Amino acid sequence: MVNVGILGATGMVGQRFIELLADHPQFEITALTASKRSAGKKYRDAVNWHLETGIPEAVKDTVVVDTDPSEVKDVDLVFSALPANIAAAVEPKFAAAGMKVASNASAMRMEPDVPLVIPEVNPEHLDLIETQQKNRGWDGFIVTNPNCSTIALTLTLKPLYDQYDIKRVYVSTMQAVSGAGYSGVPSMAILDNIVPYIGSEEEKMESETLQLLGDFDGESVTPANFKLSASCNRTPVIDGHTEAVFIEMGEEFEVDDVKDVFKGFKGLPQKLGLHSAPESPVIVREEDDRPQPRMDRGAGGGMAVSVGRVRRDNVFPENLKYVLVGHNTIRGAAGASILNAELINEIM
Amino acid sequence: MVNVGILGATGMVGQRFIELLADHPQFEITALTASKRSAGKKYRDAVNWHLETGIPEAVKDTVVVDTDPSEVKDVDLVFSALPANIAAAVEPKFAAAGMKVASNASAMRMEPDVPLVIPEVNPEHLDLIETQQKNRGWDGFIVTNPNCSTIALTLTLKPLYDQYDIKRVYVSTMQAVSGAGYSGVPSMAILDNIVPYIGSEEEKMESETLQLLGDFDGESVTPANFKLSASCNRTPVIDGHTEAVFIEMGEEFEVDDVKDVFKGFKGLPQKLGLHSAPESPVIVREEDDRPQPRMDRGAGGGMAVSVGRVRRDNVFPENLKYVLVGHNTIRGAAGASILNAELINEIM
Amino acid sequence: MVNVGILGATGMVGQRFIELLADHPQFEITALTASKRSAGKKYRDAVNWHLETGIPEAVKDTVVVDTDPSEVKDVDLVFSALPANIAAAVEPKFAAAGMKVASNASAMRMEPDVPLVIPEVNPEHLDLIETQQKNRGWDGFIVTNPNCSTIALTLTLKPLYDQYDIKRVYVSTMQAVSGAGYSGVPSMAILDNIVPYIGSEEEKMESETLQLLGDFDGESVTPANFKLSASCNRTPVIDGHTEAVFIEMGEEFEVDDVKDVFKGFKGLPQKLGLHSAPESPVIVREEDDRPQPRMDRGAGGGMAVSVGRVRRDNVFPENLKYVLVGHNTIRGAAGASILNAELINEIM
Amino acid sequence: MVNVGILGATGMVGQRFIELLADHPQFEITALTASKRSAGKKYRDAVNWHLETGIPEAVKDTVVVDTDPSEVKDVDLVFSALPANIAAAVEPKFAAAGMKVASNASAMRMEPDVPLVIPEVNPEHLDLIETQQKNRGWDGFIVTNPNCSTIALTLTLKPLYDQYDIKRVYVSTMQAVSGAGYSGVPSMAILDNIVPYIGSEEEKMESETLQLLGDFDGESVTPANFKLSASCNRTPVIDGHTEAVFIEMGEEFEVDDVKDVFKGFKGLPQKLGLHSAPESPVIVREEDDRPQPRMDRGAGGGMAVSVGRVRRDNVFPENLKYVLVGHNTIRGAAGASILNAELINEIM
Repeated sequence: MVNVGILGATGMVGQRFIELLADHPQFEITALTASKRSAGKKYRDAVNWHLETGIPEAVKDTVVVDTDPSEVKDVDLVFSALPANIAAAVEPKFAAAGMKVASNASAMRMEPDVPLVIPEVNPEHLDLIETQQKNRGWDGFIVTNPNCSTIALTLTLKPLYDQYDIKRVYVSTMQAVSGAGYSGVPSMAILDNIVPYIGSEEEKMESETLQLLGDFDGESVTPANFKLSASCNRTPVIDGHTEAVFIEMGEEFEVDDVKDVFKGFKGLPQKLGLHSAPESPVIVREEDDRPQPRMDRGAGGGMAVSVGRVRRDNVFPENLKYVLVGHNTIRGAAGASILNAELINEIM
Repeated sequence: MVNVGILGATGMVGQRFIELLADHPQFEITALTASKRSAGKKYRDAVNWHLETGIPEAVKDTVVVDTDPSEVKDVDLVFSALPANIAAAVEPKFAAAGMKVASNASAMRMEPDVPLVIPEVNPEHLDLIETQQKNRGWDGFIVTNPNCSTIALTLTLKPLYDQYDIKRVYVSTMQAVSGAGYSGVPSMAILDNIVPYIGSEEEKMESETLQLLGDFDGESVTPANFKLSASCNRTPVIDGHTEAVFIEMGEEFEVDDVKDVFKGFKGLPQKLGLHSAPESPVIVREEDDRPQPRMDRGAGGGMAVSVGRVRRDNVFPENLKYVLVGHNTIRGAAGASILNAELINEIM
Repeated sequence: MVNVGILGATGMVGQRFIELLADHPQFEITALTASKRSAGKKYRDAVNWHLETGIPEAVKDTVVVDTDPSEVKDVDLVFSALPANIAAAVEPKFAAAGMKVASNASAMRMEPDVPLVIPEVNPEHLDLIETQQKNRGWDGFIVTNPNCSTIALTLTLKPLYDQYDIKRVYVSTMQAVSGAGYSGVPSMAILDNIVPYIGSEEEKMESETLQLLGDFDGESVTPANFKLSASCNRTPVIDGHTEAVFIEMGEEFEVDDVKDVFKGFKGLPQKLGLHSAPESPVIVREEDDRPQPRMDRGAGGGMAVSVGRVRRDNVFPENLKYVLVGHNTIRGAAGASILNAELINEIM
Repeated sequence: MVNVGILGATGMVGQRFIELLADHPQFEITALTASKRSAGKKYRDAVNWHLETGIPEAVKDTVVVDTDPSEVKDVDLVFSALPANIAAAVEPKFAAAGMKVASNASAMRMEPDVPLVIPEVNPEHLDLIETQQKNRGWDGFIVTNPNCSTIALTLTLKPLYDQYDIKRVYVSTMQAVSGAGYSGVPSMAILDNIVPYIGSEEEKMESETLQLLGDFDGESVTPANFKLSASCNRTPVIDGHTEAVFIEMGEEFEVDDVKDVFKGFKGLPQKLGLHSAPESPVIVREEDDRPQPRMDRGAGGGMAVSVGRVRRDNVFPENLKYVLVGHNTIRGAAGASILNAELINEIM
């Protein structure tokens, strides 16, 4: 068993880490950090727990410590659920102290020597770790996963991009409120309403996706050779991001072939049989009215992305259209970091 | 005062007709029709009223009649809130009986001699009425308005298309439940959920928009010379459709000019000062997070469309992006038919 | 394994039966019935499946038959998810044909020789079966479970009533939309809204509760010696009924003792270790703001009722107040019938 | 015209004050206060406006000042939308500076010399002002209105209590999220959920109601001679509190008489024709399923309370049961203070 810590353990993503790691076969939670205000308290007293599953017994009495490497003993790997601004300052200290950092924060994602990884998509980018350690003189390292809406989309673009030329992608998202943290979206803002704006979300999708699908030459990443434009919206849904996708394809395709490409997609996590890897990263729904976030967010334990309405564009027959749903706080956040850590644990 | 009837007066759109016509300066409701089951009852007993405003006093005791021209006496114009399949059979009978029919039904919209009109967009298409009457030997006629999501979108495309070359439009909608009628969307289907499918909605948007912006040579309409692809989604919102729009422009533009084009847009209803015409058909919001359906659906008495996030595409700088909100049962249904009737009443 | 059938297998409660029985250790689904319209179809084609879990593989290809005993072969026990009016006509035929009927329908609940049973509350009422078979000349029999809101409430009243004198109970419910069936509550009726009326619900709670807690002398039931008044409301919640309870106690009590009474409550299903029996039928939450339907409806696999805010009334110190949450389609419907069947299977 | 100021003008209740006072015939807004952080800004820049109606033109450019009497010039009366803790410190300063304070804050409500008034219920309590001024040596004074859920309930209890003996009242509330302020209820807390707890709400209802209906002997108030127990719940509703009421009556009653008592109820504001007074403070709905918050919160411009399901208790025939809906931020907050001010303006 690998001893792991969770940085920012009391927030929404921190809670998901704890839930998903509670019965993990390789990782054992031995440290939980939070802000100074919570340090010294038992986890049960420090947290305002919001998941239906309840606080796992194993961590209820764990004493929370300050988010500082000197407070986190005998831990090999930490999961970071820190806010971006804190992550920028603190994650490097953990790496410098020799720990592996699997981070869900956006702070370091676009650093040229920090791998931004979805294990099914670009596991080879992990080779950047060596460059990172050399550049920065760290014994540990930082690995990041993308933004929630990017992960779901990129998991569906990967098998397509492997098989077909893609020219342009337009995506309009309908995102769940949990993505903004527990208090991020007031009920007054979203009941009987849509908010057509999520700060920095479009920019993240537009840059991270191309980075993830880019070519890695062993030292740096050349972004993928197509472009993507996003329009991001908040909707009154608890968990599960829905995305309407329009793709201008660069070559002929048949819809049935596209579905087969989705269905047949397996990545390295599937081949290695990693604990958190869903059997199929992309599930194809044939019903007219699926996927739907409440019905499909839990697919593959929240780690699979469901696509539906896979169809040729009526109007632009060279275009492909589909809708996807992915669980934003499992596959799109905590589960993403855990799968990264499982891959690192397996291959490094 | 013109005596008017409402066909299908007990449904959601029928109720909106009654609400909007209650204090109308030109139209007086003198006939209400519904299915045979309701015929003979007072309106208050026949209807399951669902609007916050309550049943207007003037119609409470009006006796509902069967939807048949022989039952509708001394009426010059009827508003049709009938379901498409019934409208197809019944509206022609009313026109044949000499009545003007302002229809919200989709049944006759794409008939080549039936005007599909938004008064601010293509009032000249009303000249088709003459052809229609000649073709069909009717003393009356049928005029239709488009689908709810089409109207809102087209009101924003009209001033753009007048000023700029447009190559392609992609639109992803987030539509309110009222569009499906009172019982159309079960709460089990939509609470904490999105349904990424609305039957025939994408096809309607893709065809009607081009028809509305098309060229009319006095006899027939040549569709506009760009194309539009839609992805339509149902969301947990009562009233007000939200649409994320991506436009590939065919020529250079400045964002500030586009906003000015929206703001400066006035159509014939504004020039004529029609009763239901909003002062500005398109309202530009400058806040980051507007328009929102709950906040903006009521703009201009529900007859104006609000646009926001008008911006140059980060990724495709020749593209324009924006979000719009329009009230689907006022501007998108009953109010649309009423504005058509006001225009006909004024100019014919 | 006992071969079981499900009557009305395509509706919401029918689907819950299938979900809960999919991996049951004693019951194997060998027959599914529905209306004539569905008979002859595979279940996957006959059903519009609405549960997140998906259709269990084992029943996907089961051919649905008409709801008639002659169509249901080699089945020992049937679960009835039929609407009340159909149940009244059909359930007796199944009992007459020798089958055990575990019914969730309200049709037969208040018949004097039909046991209305919650296994933790009044298992001894099952002795009525003998009377029923004698009265009606049936080889089979019918056993019923109460209404969803009654079950949750009565599970909390049972341990109290065993320990304390109760004078009066007032209860105001906040019920989930799933209780009305999939299409029962239109979204237009309940988004941003409360509907303070559920047909016959108050009457059911007011009569069934006293019947369940009544004395059984081997032949008939004398209702419990207190009275209960209900006010029932529909709220925008998918699953899980919440009930605010006020009790005028007939004797002194300490709040801590009441909590201990709740916590210590075990019924016959717990003693017998029945498969669907939750470890504790009543769970006590100590947080100020629990129980909540989204957080607590899944407790004990949906079979436990959570109570919270257990407190002495500030104003009437002889009164007890608390709030409860129970899962209305598991503990309050399908799970209730299954637990009845498990008990019958074990003891008869 | 009376010059008025609004203390705490940027919050939810402050915004309602501005909306309701925008076209007021007697009051003209000449001062807006907020926290130091906002002082010196134009109102349009200081506020995050959340009402559908938009910011009234008249105040858009008003410069916000610090909440200090020395900053508020030439103002006769201030409306206080301050949080309770700030109100306790600041409102007395305004009164000492000679201003009339019509406060929606809870801070001073239960002070023995501060009138807690609903104009239709206990206008005579305003005589306490004289005592207050004498006690405290103020030229100005403070008048308060009750808590939102109390106001709606008390408006319905007043005509009953005038006519009948009342023994006990039980009330279970289903309250809107706006009552907690714009950010008070996170969407994560309330989507698909109920929260059965609102801090201090039950205590306020239980004490304020009796105070309002109490006897005033010219110097102090003796609480009403019945008692009331409340259970308060938060529901996913934007505006409009719903309350299920059970009353143990102390004497015989007929349901039709009770309805007539409700319908016939007129208070001093109705007699004086005050601007914000609804024609009838209590509206009786006869439909089975009304009142509902989305449908009925706007009754009487948000100033009337709607009651429905007025019925004799099936189980306790000496009891009366009904449901009410009142608008919590209009009748229950800003509108309440304004009606108090209108009454003061008229009679003092």
